Amino acid sequence: MSRSTYADLAGGDTRVHHCLSDEAFLGGLVDFEKAVAKAACQVGLIDSSGLEQALHVIEDFDLKLEDLSRSAISGANPVIPLVKELKAKSPQGIHVGATSQDAIDSSLMLVMRKAIRQLLVLVDENLELLKTLALTHRNSPVIGHTLGQQATPTTFGLCAALWWQQLQEARRDLDALVFPVQFAGATGTLAAVYPHGMKMHEIIAEELGLVSRPMVWHTDRTPMLKIANSLCETAIAANKIATDLIAFSATEIAEVQEANPGGSSAMPHKANPAAAIAARGYALQAPGYLNMLTTCAVHLQQRAIGEWHAEWRSIRELAACAGSAQARINAALSGLQVYTETMSRNLKQAETGKQSVGHAAELVDTILRGDCYD
Amino acid sequence: MSRSTYADLAGGDTRVHHCLSDEAFLGGLVDFEKAVAKAACQVGLIDSSGLEQALHVIEDFDLKLEDLSRSAISGANPVIPLVKELKAKSPQGIHVGATSQDAIDSSLMLVMRKAIRQLLVLVDENLELLKTLALTHRNSPVIGHTLGQQATPTTFGLCAALWWQQLQEARRDLDALVFPVQFAGATGTLAAVYPHGMKMHEIIAEELGLVSRPMVWHTDRTPMLKIANSLCETAIAANKIATDLIAFSATEIAEVQEANPGGSSAMPHKANPAAAIAARGYALQAPGYLNMLTTCAVHLQQRAIGEWHAEWRSIRELAACAGSAQARINAALSGLQVYTETMSRNLKQAETGKQSVGHAAELVDTILRGDCYD
Amino acid sequence: MSRSTYADLAGGDTRVHHCLSDEAFLGGLVDFEKAVAKAACQVGLIDSSGLEQALHVIEDFDLKLEDLSRSAISGANPVIPLVKELKAKSPQGIHVGATSQDAIDSSLMLVMRKAIRQLLVLVDENLELLKTLALTHRNSPVIGHTLGQQATPTTFGLCAALWWQQLQEARRDLDALVFPVQFAGATGTLAAVYPHGMKMHEIIAEELGLVSRPMVWHTDRTPMLKIANSLCETAIAANKIATDLIAFSATEIAEVQEANPGGSSAMPHKANPAAAIAARGYALQAPGYLNMLTTCAVHLQQRAIGEWHAEWRSIRELAACAGSAQARINAALSGLQVYTETMSRNLKQAETGKQSVGHAAELVDTILRGDCYD
Amino acid sequence: MSRSTYADLAGGDTRVHHCLSDEAFLGGLVDFEKAVAKAACQVGLIDSSGLEQALHVIEDFDLKLEDLSRSAISGANPVIPLVKELKAKSPQGIHVGATSQDAIDSSLMLVMRKAIRQLLVLVDENLELLKTLALTHRNSPVIGHTLGQQATPTTFGLCAALWWQQLQEARRDLDALVFPVQFAGATGTLAAVYPHGMKMHEIIAEELGLVSRPMVWHTDRTPMLKIANSLCETAIAANKIATDLIAFSATEIAEVQEANPGGSSAMPHKANPAAAIAARGYALQAPGYLNMLTTCAVHLQQRAIGEWHAEWRSIRELAACAGSAQARINAALSGLQVYTETMSRNLKQAETGKQSVGHAAELVDTILRGDCYD
Repeated sequence: MSRSTYADLAGGDTRVHHCLSDEAFLGGLVDFEKAVAKAACQVGLIDSSGLEQALHVIEDFDLKLEDLSRSAISGANPVIPLVKELKAKSPQGIHVGATSQDAIDSSLMLVMRKAIRQLLVLVDENLELLKTLALTHRNSPVIGHTLGQQATPTTFGLCAALWWQQLQEARRDLDALVFPVQFAGATGTLAAVYPHGMKMHEIIAEELGLVSRPMVWHTDRTPMLKIANSLCETAIAANKIATDLIAFSATEIAEVQEANPGGSSAMPHKANPAAAIAARGYALQAPGYLNMLTTCAVHLQQRAIGEWHAEWRSIRELAACAGSAQARINAALSGLQVYTETMSRNLKQAETGKQSVGHAAELVDTILRGDCYD
Repeated sequence: MSRSTYADLAGGDTRVHHCLSDEAFLGGLVDFEKAVAKAACQVGLIDSSGLEQALHVIEDFDLKLEDLSRSAISGANPVIPLVKELKAKSPQGIHVGATSQDAIDSSLMLVMRKAIRQLLVLVDENLELLKTLALTHRNSPVIGHTLGQQATPTTFGLCAALWWQQLQEARRDLDALVFPVQFAGATGTLAAVYPHGMKMHEIIAEELGLVSRPMVWHTDRTPMLKIANSLCETAIAANKIATDLIAFSATEIAEVQEANPGGSSAMPHKANPAAAIAARGYALQAPGYLNMLTTCAVHLQQRAIGEWHAEWRSIRELAACAGSAQARINAALSGLQVYTETMSRNLKQAETGKQSVGHAAELVDTILRGDCYD
Repeated sequence: MSRSTYADLAGGDTRVHHCLSDEAFLGGLVDFEKAVAKAACQVGLIDSSGLEQALHVIEDFDLKLEDLSRSAISGANPVIPLVKELKAKSPQGIHVGATSQDAIDSSLMLVMRKAIRQLLVLVDENLELLKTLALTHRNSPVIGHTLGQQATPTTFGLCAALWWQQLQEARRDLDALVFPVQFAGATGTLAAVYPHGMKMHEIIAEELGLVSRPMVWHTDRTPMLKIANSLCETAIAANKIATDLIAFSATEIAEVQEANPGGSSAMPHKANPAAAIAARGYALQAPGYLNMLTTCAVHLQQRAIGEWHAEWRSIRELAACAGSAQARINAALSGLQVYTETMSRNLKQAETGKQSVGHAAELVDTILRGDCYD
Repeated sequence: MSRSTYADLAGGDTRVHHCLSDEAFLGGLVDFEKAVAKAACQVGLIDSSGLEQALHVIEDFDLKLEDLSRSAISGANPVIPLVKELKAKSPQGIHVGATSQDAIDSSLMLVMRKAIRQLLVLVDENLELLKTLALTHRNSPVIGHTLGQQATPTTFGLCAALWWQQLQEARRDLDALVFPVQFAGATGTLAAVYPHGMKMHEIIAEELGLVSRPMVWHTDRTPMLKIANSLCETAIAANKIATDLIAFSATEIAEVQEANPGGSSAMPHKANPAAAIAARGYALQAPGYLNMLTTCAVHLQQRAIGEWHAEWRSIRELAACAGSAQARINAALSGLQVYTETMSRNLKQAETGKQSVGHAAELVDTILRGDCYD
């Protein structure tokens, strides 16, 4: 049984989502098994005809998601029936030296790496849009607001530059993430393939394009947490932009408008900042998913008792939220109408409108020079 | 694009999930529109032929989930295109006096009511299993553990009775939930159907089998929070049972065993408490979903700016987790092997094994009498 | 070593805080020990001279908080050194049949009961202020806002009535809370005082004014969770009021103003809605504390391995946040300036300002009649 | 009014706590004002006698915490009364160009930098203890456990090396943190000290030993989030060690024992792993505090409406929890009794005890070489 997603009913992203599906996750398991077979052959645990058969069987694998789901119930994981099925057809070269968590963690890393690559494409488009806004409006004065009250002036360019600064830092963190392979066997000693374990580990990592450090992280979920932290940062950066766009779009302020504002089922006159609102809707879920991952980050002894299972969806949903939020920010920023005349008029009416914008333009330049955080 | 769920890859429940799908959610929107049309007719805003046409059009409605999802993007909600489509075919009787949030909140309440009914069936089965365990083992001594150390004896029946107590209280809270209709129009004043608003509200509630209090809760999310709290309680009750079953099943203790323990892809000898572990995997996600709902519970002015959108999936996922956790507890408890001889042996070896079990049996009776919390 | 609180630096409540201090918590431990001694005497486990001595020793107890803190380190709980100290002076009648968790849980319930009584006083004052606002402005039209945009009119009275509705429901839940005694001994069987356990349980509950159901909840944290849920609801209700007051106070809207608005260290002209902002600052922390309590609600076997310790502060901090939020809402609402002329002017300028307020007044009456949720 | 802390009643750390007190926070505000005065003088906004007077007044400042707390209420921040007091005595050189958030954010960074330095001392001690355990027991076989069941063997040294790996990575992240100054004035444009703003920013950063990038982060809370993420990682690393130590200490396993196990108020025979349990008690609160900070990370327009206030305590409490958890881990690891004979005996009794430990020793070496994550 498959429940489709929130995304379906409010227009989220699909490029990132596509990488996160259960089908993609299952595909990662299959890729892992292929890499294991190749490594087993390279270290001499199976011969080349054994490898050929194993790869043939793995490539031919066609267990349906629903079937796999059903057969996964008794052992609480899909690798057990998958491996059973494969081994029935190829007694050699399947899952050599591996444990279920090796396959699932490696597949999750493959899935996350792909999803985050797609996310970075979106983020880069948004950074470009923000940079243009910052430069275009480097000197466009606008009344600033603190604690919800009109304060002193700033420029719209500085607002955009600060959005850029925050998103750019999230981008750097996403980009610096490492996606390690998992391969260490039952209790993490690589015992079943001794003395070939270290070599196989290296080969599998290379085959999958994953890094080989940390070597064993069955119960050290730091790699997962770092991914989660960066995704949450990215969602928060989207939320900040969205929240400010909604404030700038308020009827009483009306200093910006989305290119394609949303309608209302009850009030045809409305021009809602719908893309920004949808972005918030997605981004607001990110801290909750991060919370699932931090509260499930302590894995008992050599394998967790449920905390690991809780990660499988949480990490992917978090990526989906970050992706959808960035996608809707993209819609909000693309063709954004910036009403500088309204900004001037509002500024003139503000009690403190006469004040200068100080170093705003210099700050824009400093920020966009990208030496923040360096 | 539809991502299927975690449930698919570790064997969760389907009876509860079935009620939570996007299709079910869409079905609730349609049911709401039918009720509105009937109410509009009863108060005289449309005549009976207008009603007939409206109902015909609504019943014939066949917008596909994927299409609706796509057309929902621009306004960040699926009701706008749904209503547009319906109005195109029936100019009268559609969405009379309603706003998008009326339709979505009412649909969510319909969805949650159904899902929670299914959940209660599961919970009742589990309560029955627990009661049987408690009575059967009312006097079966077992060494208790505090802070992970052997302490003084208790009985297995008292352990089961305390699991029952906790789940029974969650059950009472689930059972006491109210599912209110939402119908108040654009800014919650029922202005568009004045002076028929109060009457229409009553009729729509009755048509849908929802309660009519609180009358307006567009920005008072208490009904949502109470549902979330009860679902989280239910997941926590499952987690407690699962956590203890895993401890009782530990190789070194071996006092219970699931009827169908899980295997391992690396260690064929293993008899894992897989159902309990899967139950924990689901239940551990519940506090994160509750957190999404509590952090999104403050809705600005007369309609939130994203917080509302964040609820649509969170509340359903929370119900799915609670349902899956109870379903796996059901598998863990059904046919559970209780090794009283091992319990006796372990007890004899414990330093404090000679002590009595005090009022254990009386406590079992008091607990099962059900006057806890009364 | 004592760190003082956030409250100190932004002006929170003190009436509620006062009940939550470590001194109060320690006082609860002492009260518990007195009740135990009395119960032990009533069931004949000590005679009246034993009781006299025990009570004398307990009442004379003067272990300083810092000393107790230091001596609590080795056993990770303050009851062990407290009981040791008392027993050294009175060999009879101290901690009879009890375990540390009995003392601490009972003390926490005493502390929470008192704190929530104080909180209810604050909440009742705020409900009164809100009711007056709702009635005074039952017919004061104001432009409504949805998705941050001007929508159709409502009345300020209806806004206030909806704040009242939400806070009133939180109040009902607070008021319905039960505070159970904990007394069940080492592994929850009352074995050490058999056959007097059930009787002693009853006496201790009565002595402390706590309820006696559920009888044993060492590992069933439902009573704690219900308190936490209600406190979080109360904080959310404060946050909703605060968030709307900040929106109503925005320079561009200026429809209300706090009686004593806050200043700024940089902008002397500012009139910040400082009380509302402080209220949000406190209330925003509540979901995080609730999250600590829900993620720590599963207590292993007969006594948790850290989850229990994590509750001691979380539940009190949550109450402190709820209390401070209500206290600052009190400051925000007391003498609130409501500018109905500005409301009218803003409404006239709104595109949809001509529309009626529909059933707003009737809704105010229905809401204040208090049959919501009945 | 001051509430003391959880720490007081269960024996937490004091070295880290000491840096986090409200007194320390207040001290940071004073340090900030001094730096501002010096910068104002260096750029020529005040002369040297003006500076002398300002510094004199600031250094003489003796507003009591309780007084400041009281006077902070009306503006919801302690900087307003502090600055007012200082300016009354020195009309020149006080708070030049600054806004309240500049002072508070800079002070929080000073506080966190000091606290994290102390935390690193603790962490380094623990890393050393873990390294010794890993090397000493590099070849000490012990039965591994997965899903709560005995699995295949590993070595105690590999367990310790994996604890080291996780804590080491948290250490690297803590060590890589940057603590930026905040100085940008009312709406973040440095307007009030134009054209000296950029220069003053640099001087103040240097005076305080804080970095000057990002230049403005009033509403970009990334620096705060990165600190929070690292602290949470550190707490999680402590929790993993504690959780495993509790499992190793279980009566039925008894492979390790704390040097000074805790007692019980009800069961004198008990030897509880009290330090590990206290460590978990602290660490379990960290994800909730991180959640407060991530859910409060979106700051509206040019200054948040409460989210900022919510950070003041959360970030310090999070550091306190991380510090206390590490302190109790220190107590748990110092002099830890490792019973290798019991390990051997348990292993022999395990069904899979004959299997080899594979690459365990090599993995210990690879891990401790510290090229993990490189």
